Amino acid sequence: MSLNTDFPIGVFDSGVGGLTVLKALTHKFPHENFLYLGDTARLPYGSKSPQTIRKYTQQALSFLIERKVKALVIACNSASSQFPEKEYRGICVETVIEPGSLMALKATQNNRIGVLGTRATVQSHAYEKVLKQLSEEQGHTQGLEVFSEAAPLFVPLAEEGWSDDPITNLIAFRYVQPLVQKQVDTIILGCTHYPILQASIQKAAGASITLIDSGQAVAESLQAKFDSGIIPLRPSTSSERHIQLLSTDLSSQFEMLSRQILAPAIPSGFEFVEI
Amino acid sequence: MSLNTDFPIGVFDSGVGGLTVLKALTHKFPHENFLYLGDTARLPYGSKSPQTIRKYTQQALSFLIERKVKALVIACNSASSQFPEKEYRGICVETVIEPGSLMALKATQNNRIGVLGTRATVQSHAYEKVLKQLSEEQGHTQGLEVFSEAAPLFVPLAEEGWSDDPITNLIAFRYVQPLVQKQVDTIILGCTHYPILQASIQKAAGASITLIDSGQAVAESLQAKFDSGIIPLRPSTSSERHIQLLSTDLSSQFEMLSRQILAPAIPSGFEFVEI
Repeated sequence: MSLNTDFPIGVFDSGVGGLTVLKALTHKFPHENFLYLGDTARLPYGSKSPQTIRKYTQQALSFLIERKVKALVIACNSASSQFPEKEYRGICVETVIEPGSLMALKATQNNRIGVLGTRATVQSHAYEKVLKQLSEEQGHTQGLEVFSEAAPLFVPLAEEGWSDDPITNLIAFRYVQPLVQKQVDTIILGCTHYPILQASIQKAAGASITLIDSGQAVAESLQAKFDSGIIPLRPSTSSERHIQLLSTDLSSQFEMLSRQILAPAIPSGFEFVEI
Repeated sequence: MSLNTDFPIGVFDSGVGGLTVLKALTHKFPHENFLYLGDTARLPYGSKSPQTIRKYTQQALSFLIERKVKALVIACNSASSQFPEKEYRGICVETVIEPGSLMALKATQNNRIGVLGTRATVQSHAYEKVLKQLSEEQGHTQGLEVFSEAAPLFVPLAEEGWSDDPITNLIAFRYVQPLVQKQVDTIILGCTHYPILQASIQKAAGASITLIDSGQAVAESLQAKFDSGIIPLRPSTSSERHIQLLSTDLSSQFEMLSRQILAPAIPSGFEFVEI
């Protein structure tokens, strides 16, 4: 299939969390078009079974492909953990797990990495598997230790808008403390909602622990695919780019949160879709 | 349609919250069969649009009717607020809103009632409308004041199992305090999850405020329908009753939480269904 440089990059998440990834991508690639799909009618994926998550993810990716995209980003850890393929129906697929893991391996000094995620992501051991595999590929055959904690309240706290709030600080402390006790020096924010609570999580972790934001990790990984020509770059001389946001539910909160999270980037339009 | 006394009472919720209603019903009606449907694949309903909630509710009720039930209970406030009908396809429908409202009107001394609910329930003004209507029907044409607060974190706190926890107490305090300042003497727990956090909510409200649990209110309302013969009662001489639980997702947490919430009643079986 020949991919038009004007085709947008399709970004998919169960809801608004993936907008933190979209924000990082719009910042890194100022001339690219983006088509974001939030499956808000069926969120959250984190509490669903692996079979259901995989089925919904395939439906969403198929929907984006039919709208013509030149690359796909699964900006949701629960979905990424159930979709290991690097290609779907001829289009390359980027998940958040491998880029975040690579960045964490670069950052760690003591080979002790913590992961915060939803219950589904933690139970899938997705980060642990990818981290150990990448570490072996890099020739570090031993010594890496990975510790995971499920943090189910972080998503509703982010959606409630209680970022950098005393209650959020307390909850962050409860979730992060077990990782601090394991002496990790790097923590992967293993859910795309979590960067919204980054200030509270950093306070709970302390300044010496590096937090890994999947959005920045995905942006670096896509940069490599542009550089190698796997994805055709849209020329900087192109007309103004578009950031189109689709959601599967009509809720007005999606539009409000989208504008907040994406700023200073401005969405070109919102559309309700059934998938 | 002739209704067999052995037909179960169908109880529907988006997830596990409705189990607090089922618990109250199994306690009040020890000889009745129950068929519970938790639409766990699509929970939570509270953050979805009115149109989507109504569509999902109709699908769930139709599913229960096809399995043969003699009455329907919508044990979910978000769904109840979008389904005012008292009958669906010939089967009588009980929602949580009217029984809870009636009980609150009986309990209040100062005519100031508070409502805690999800964002969808609060935005629908469902309790406010029903409370005012019932109050007028009772001849109290003025003086009733209703104050509502959305408490979006209560559902994930209940599902996290942090009941009567210092963090839950703090969050309850934040949500309940505005109602206390309005000098309400009665608070409707306007989401079927909330009775799981009753201890924390009562602490935040203080002992002088009466909390209204929808489960008990629905049980009283159904009792009246049994008494008047609208629903045929299953004789106490019948064989052992069954409590069958269906869910639309395979997650193991549903089974665990169900057993915890329903105790001492014991589920007869679990079944995964697609609706």
